[in-house]
Amino acid sequence: MDDTKRTEIAELGEFGLIDRICAPFEPQQKTTVKGCGDDAAVLDAGDRYGLVSTDLMLEGVHFDLTYFPLQHLGYKAVVVAVSDILAMNGTPRQVLVSLGISSRFSVEMIDRFYEGVRAACSDFKTDLVGGDTSASVNGLTISVTATGDVDKDKIAYRSGAGANDLICLTGDLGAAYMGLHLLEREKRACDGHPNPEPKFEGYEYILRRQLKPDARVDVVEKLAQSGIVPTSMIDISDGLSSELLHLCKASDKGARIYLNRLPIAKQTYAMADELHSDPVVAALNGGDDYELLFTVPLARRQEVFALGVDVIGHMTEAGTGAALVTPDGQEIALQAQGWK
Amino acid sequence: MDDTKRTEIAELGEFGLIDRICAPFEPQQKTTVKGCGDDAAVLDAGDRYGLVSTDLMLEGVHFDLTYFPLQHLGYKAVVVAVSDILAMNGTPRQVLVSLGISSRFSVEMIDRFYEGVRAACSDFKTDLVGGDTSASVNGLTISVTATGDVDKDKIAYRSGAGANDLICLTGDLGAAYMGLHLLEREKRACDGHPNPEPKFEGYEYILRRQLKPDARVDVVEKLAQSGIVPTSMIDISDGLSSELLHLCKASDKGARIYLNRLPIAKQTYAMADELHSDPVVAALNGGDDYELLFTVPLARRQEVFALGVDVIGHMTEAGTGAALVTPDGQEIALQAQGWK
Repeated sequence: MDDTKRTEIAELGEFGLIDRICAPFEPQQKTTVKGCGDDAAVLDAGDRYGLVSTDLMLEGVHFDLTYFPLQHLGYKAVVVAVSDILAMNGTPRQVLVSLGISSRFSVEMIDRFYEGVRAACSDFKTDLVGGDTSASVNGLTISVTATGDVDKDKIAYRSGAGANDLICLTGDLGAAYMGLHLLEREKRACDGHPNPEPKFEGYEYILRRQLKPDARVDVVEKLAQSGIVPTSMIDISDGLSSELLHLCKASDKGARIYLNRLPIAKQTYAMADELHSDPVVAALNGGDDYELLFTVPLARRQEVFALGVDVIGHMTEAGTGAALVTPDGQEIALQAQGWK
Repeated sequence: MDDTKRTEIAELGEFGLIDRICAPFEPQQKTTVKGCGDDAAVLDAGDRYGLVSTDLMLEGVHFDLTYFPLQHLGYKAVVVAVSDILAMNGTPRQVLVSLGISSRFSVEMIDRFYEGVRAACSDFKTDLVGGDTSASVNGLTISVTATGDVDKDKIAYRSGAGANDLICLTGDLGAAYMGLHLLEREKRACDGHPNPEPKFEGYEYILRRQLKPDARVDVVEKLAQSGIVPTSMIDISDGLSSELLHLCKASDKGARIYLNRLPIAKQTYAMADELHSDPVVAALNGGDDYELLFTVPLARRQEVFALGVDVIGHMTEAGTGAALVTPDGQEIALQAQGWK
């Protein structure tokens, strides 16, 4: 292959690469409402908008089968895809799951993976409607596509946040990341032992957050019941910092979030303490949370509190940057995550 | 992992595995019209049916980058996905392309891949609306999802063929497969040479069929203009035999196709001759043709001829099997392809 010039992908970063890929594409189809650049593509389906999104999960990058049970992996694959539909304020409807399988995998192992897919489909009321299966040279390759729909007047893009809008967050952050660190630690500790006994007691919550995350269908339903349409929304797969920066960029606004308002679970603190790491870093950059981050006008404040979500800050005027504010008033600029 | 029982995937085969995966899934969404088991999933989108399909292409299994230019690979990835929409008699609208990329790949290489995606999107009037990018441990992973739609009274499933319906085929068969063999031969011949000079002269057609196949949008458009709705339809990705067996199984019918009616190009014969292989085997089992195989009622015979497609045989009653009939009247049972 001709490689006279070689730019490493890490130089651009994942989001730079995506921008570069998408920039030269001009929509030709009148049903294309929104292409690249949001959590899901938006298609005009007559009365409603159709939504479609796709995610790749690769062994050795996104998961380690030494400690990730195949049932949980199947479940999580559906959560990851469905979460992108929810992030448009949409209702997930169908999933398509593709698998690239090396000779290491038996039919029984594939069965276990699809048990997890089925459990997630049942929990999130989605149908498995297709996919592709293929041999692979090595490792397990998973690709999941999710479809859904949303009322045209209820869609939430990344781009609609106004200055002074409240920044709302479901659930808590950093737990999945600390769960991953615990699993990695126990993998190292058990390596080579004939009867490994990993120590997980007291850390069930952070393990569950890593191995069997939730897709927040409940929150999208509650928003609909309350008549609240977020001005912008995104799901947290790469960590709060990256996702908030996406909202800021797409909405051309700044943001301030407050350190003492970041929801972090007790087990997340405890694990971070044990590992001598910073729970706030886990919350900001850990990822794998699959919680929803959204903005609402200040006037909807009371209604948002009633939903049981946390208000962690507010949007600011364009050009003011995105920062974490410490209790003593210091501002720390938020950083996006690099190419992993 | 617990592996008390281990069944190899090759024992079930790809299609057996897909049946096993899909069997326990019951649709819960009323918009799910047809799930697994056809070329694309069918979703109720109000006035029309929405279509969605996904394909996986893995380095070392589906392509070899030693001789497969990245532009062509991007092009072909779109063709593979779009072809599934056409196989439902649908109009392709959007594609989502995901890439798993190892550190071997530069930004410039990714650019070349997307040049091919863009060329195909332009040729087949589809929009790139999303995807996912991820690091991979090794090799290039491609996942493509295509969407489309079709009038509710024009959809063609695999399951509607009637006994005596004519079996129609677009284009010719086996060329892509012989093109692949030529590429493999020249790869071996050039291996280790400082200035490799692969010999491709006179074989431009079969190379193009492998490296830059066509998606038969033109045929679906002509069918619409002629007012013909195929009673069943499928695209040929795994070879004529496998695909015809799918139509027979889904329609609960048999089939007879005639050896002397199989469309095989001159270069396909010539290459097969050079490699001492059988061009008919290439046509039946080669795959990668991305032509359309469909059935129409006998009464539409004249109109089908006018479309410029070949009639290669006819469907028969259930229980009569699927066979290739030689000029001397011998019947050879068609075989499905195994797990590759």
